[in-house]
Amino acid sequence: MSRCSFRRGLIRPTEGAEVNGSKLLTGKTSSNQDAEHHLAKMVMNRIETLARISEEPGRLTRTFCSPAMRRANDLVATWMRKAGMTVREDEIGNLLGHYPADASNPKTKNRKSKTLLLGSHLDTVRNAGKFDGSLGVLVAIACVQHLHDTQTRLPFSLDVIGFCDEEGVRFQSTYLGSKVLAGTFDSKDLKRADDGGVTMAEAIRSFGGRPSALAKARLNSERFLGYAEVHIEQGPVLEQRGLSVGVVIAIAGQSRVKLTFTGQAGHAGTTPMDLRRDALCAAAEFILAVEWLARSRGGLAATVGEIVVLPGVSNVIPAQATLSLDVRHAEDTLWQRALSALRTQAFKIAQRRNLLAKWQLVHEAASVACNRRLSAVLRRAVKLHENEVMSLPSGAGHDAAAMAAITPVAMLFVRCKGGISHRPDESVATKDVRVAIAVMNEFLQKLAISR
Amino acid sequence: MSRCSFRRGLIRPTEGAEVNGSKLLTGKTSSNQDAEHHLAKMVMNRIETLARISEEPGRLTRTFCSPAMRRANDLVATWMRKAGMTVREDEIGNLLGHYPADASNPKTKNRKSKTLLLGSHLDTVRNAGKFDGSLGVLVAIACVQHLHDTQTRLPFSLDVIGFCDEEGVRFQSTYLGSKVLAGTFDSKDLKRADDGGVTMAEAIRSFGGRPSALAKARLNSERFLGYAEVHIEQGPVLEQRGLSVGVVIAIAGQSRVKLTFTGQAGHAGTTPMDLRRDALCAAAEFILAVEWLARSRGGLAATVGEIVVLPGVSNVIPAQATLSLDVRHAEDTLWQRALSALRTQAFKIAQRRNLLAKWQLVHEAASVACNRRLSAVLRRAVKLHENEVMSLPSGAGHDAAAMAAITPVAMLFVRCKGGISHRPDESVATKDVRVAIAVMNEFLQKLAISR
Repeated sequence: MSRCSFRRGLIRPTEGAEVNGSKLLTGKTSSNQDAEHHLAKMVMNRIETLARISEEPGRLTRTFCSPAMRRANDLVATWMRKAGMTVREDEIGNLLGHYPADASNPKTKNRKSKTLLLGSHLDTVRNAGKFDGSLGVLVAIACVQHLHDTQTRLPFSLDVIGFCDEEGVRFQSTYLGSKVLAGTFDSKDLKRADDGGVTMAEAIRSFGGRPSALAKARLNSERFLGYAEVHIEQGPVLEQRGLSVGVVIAIAGQSRVKLTFTGQAGHAGTTPMDLRRDALCAAAEFILAVEWLARSRGGLAATVGEIVVLPGVSNVIPAQATLSLDVRHAEDTLWQRALSALRTQAFKIAQRRNLLAKWQLVHEAASVACNRRLSAVLRRAVKLHENEVMSLPSGAGHDAAAMAAITPVAMLFVRCKGGISHRPDESVATKDVRVAIAVMNEFLQKLAISR
Repeated sequence: MSRCSFRRGLIRPTEGAEVNGSKLLTGKTSSNQDAEHHLAKMVMNRIETLARISEEPGRLTRTFCSPAMRRANDLVATWMRKAGMTVREDEIGNLLGHYPADASNPKTKNRKSKTLLLGSHLDTVRNAGKFDGSLGVLVAIACVQHLHDTQTRLPFSLDVIGFCDEEGVRFQSTYLGSKVLAGTFDSKDLKRADDGGVTMAEAIRSFGGRPSALAKARLNSERFLGYAEVHIEQGPVLEQRGLSVGVVIAIAGQSRVKLTFTGQAGHAGTTPMDLRRDALCAAAEFILAVEWLARSRGGLAATVGEIVVLPGVSNVIPAQATLSLDVRHAEDTLWQRALSALRTQAFKIAQRRNLLAKWQLVHEAASVACNRRLSAVLRRAVKLHENEVMSLPSGAGHDAAAMAAITPVAMLFVRCKGGISHRPDESVATKDVRVAIAVMNEFLQKLAISR
């Protein structure tokens, strides 16, 4: 649909609003910039307020179905209502704010309108930063606030979701909240227990949810236009390029391996070098092989983040070295190929050194491509605010990866300081939040027009 | 002095003994072999009995001034007495058995005879093997037992010492027992506290010792012929060469370093390889540099036995890697040169990777050469029992290293299975213990003759 369609009423100020349609279209007028700046400051204030809701004193930790999560949901619900949304909590504890479509629109008048989903997660890791997750929820609410303030309705409804568990800290899970909506939640997980012995089912019940209903909570995908998520980049790429935001192409596929080299302990002073079977030396060789391979293949991220050596004493030759390997790429064939090459390498190193190697695949997830059409709209929105429209893969997983099972997804990354995330010093500049809000406002309008 | 001197009475059966001097000289007659075999079996039985004296159930741990040490000293004292020795415990808890010289010998009759020291330590590491330390004490007692059984006295006295602390487990110390006798004990150490907050002074007092007397407990070096220690090799060299015993040339000098690389943490999925400052990759490079250097320099032992990575999470790039470095060589200039090269290497790696490196020298000890004359006598004794007289450095430290401050030292290494030590499966064959006893019997006789 052309821009003319809009003028014919696809984006329609609600009754009594004095809104200039052209302002909404370009987002370039100074009053819009003022509004966006004001909204960005509101988001930053709310980020601070939300960061004070924690289950641990002195640092931010907000896990699934915790009392802190209850307070966070209740607070965010008030902000949703303030933005003109009706609010509900679903059976697992996701918070959903609904902003209805323009009922007078000829396209939506006589039938149930479609819905665009916006959101991110409200849980955190332990000793978290303030922006990871929260930023996406609060920017989405800010965009709805903007519509509400300007008494504007779109030809589609908006559902803003605050997912209850993306980090999986409490039950060592992944995407609990979004998986329920996507119909991929595994009921077996309900039996998992947290460190205190509380099962997931009990936790959900005490939070007010209904574990028995989760298997059937899948959203009807026909109702949705897609899911768009704003998230901090959690990496240094945008900062390096001097950009506030970038568009995500895909959420990288990844695998996690536990690799163990077993050799033989020996006295560090009495065992000649040529009679040693040093597990740490083998691990060192492997770690450098991982780095070399990843450096030589564009877009591949490969990391050894953990290493434990036994017996781990300064005067004993290491008998065992166990390490983690994390390999990611936006294209599945590429990380799979890299993984296979590294596996071969590990066994070669072990053989040459007369050691044993044990390779255990701990986790594997295919990449999730962002929707081309939705991302193209997002890119056009970015183009109005950035000199360069950067497309980049997401090396980290996000709720969008789970939501992609039922609806097209798009993601906007926001620059964060030093690429730092999952730490208290995680930081995003107000001006970048402003750009994110402006881009998402544009995105909504362009989507309205294009429908 | 020539062999004739012996025949003239330097080794003299005690009154009423029916011992053929020539048997004592060669140690080759079948009855001597029977006696040595019998003594070896006795030593093996005692090793088992002693290994049951532990402060931890189910595994052998016997630390300085512990109740287990008290029981061990008391038991070993009974064995010493059985071998004709008078027994005392010194001010720090070393157990000393005295076997007097031949009073009728013209050389010793009218003046105080000199004393040869034999021994090793009775303390153990945690979850120890049975032979480390104990073997040396029990072989020494067996040799005296042999003299006693054959009613033989030497032209010098024998003092068998069971040192109270060589491993330094309780107070993170080194050679407490032998340092007191060598006059190198540092009284400041008395203030050190164990894990339970008990100071060394308190521990010594409750064991029956006298902390205030330690500084002046140095033995008068003029009284001693030397110190000879039998010890398991704790390495695989003798086993590889198919030998029961070998003669130690020197106790290697060593240094211990704590090296820390500090880079920057980052998300394993979102930080491109070229923007990383991975501390573990730097550590891996260093570990391989250590191995390469040690392999390319004969006799050098260099080991990274510990590594700790922070934050140590599979999906986070390591911000910090701290590792231990242990470098040893029998020639001080060689380990010092190696250490200096590795230090340069560490800083080069850090610089190239834009990391910080911190190099902390934790411990440094010069090598201790075994006495040439004493070792030559030992080698001649070995020659009677082995096809090859192997000389080898000791990569591990021993009480002999401390004793060298006041008297010439010699050491005999005994083969152990797989080079394994400091572990419950530490193992020495009875036949090798027999050879060790035979060699030490010979050594005593040759020493008697050569005086």
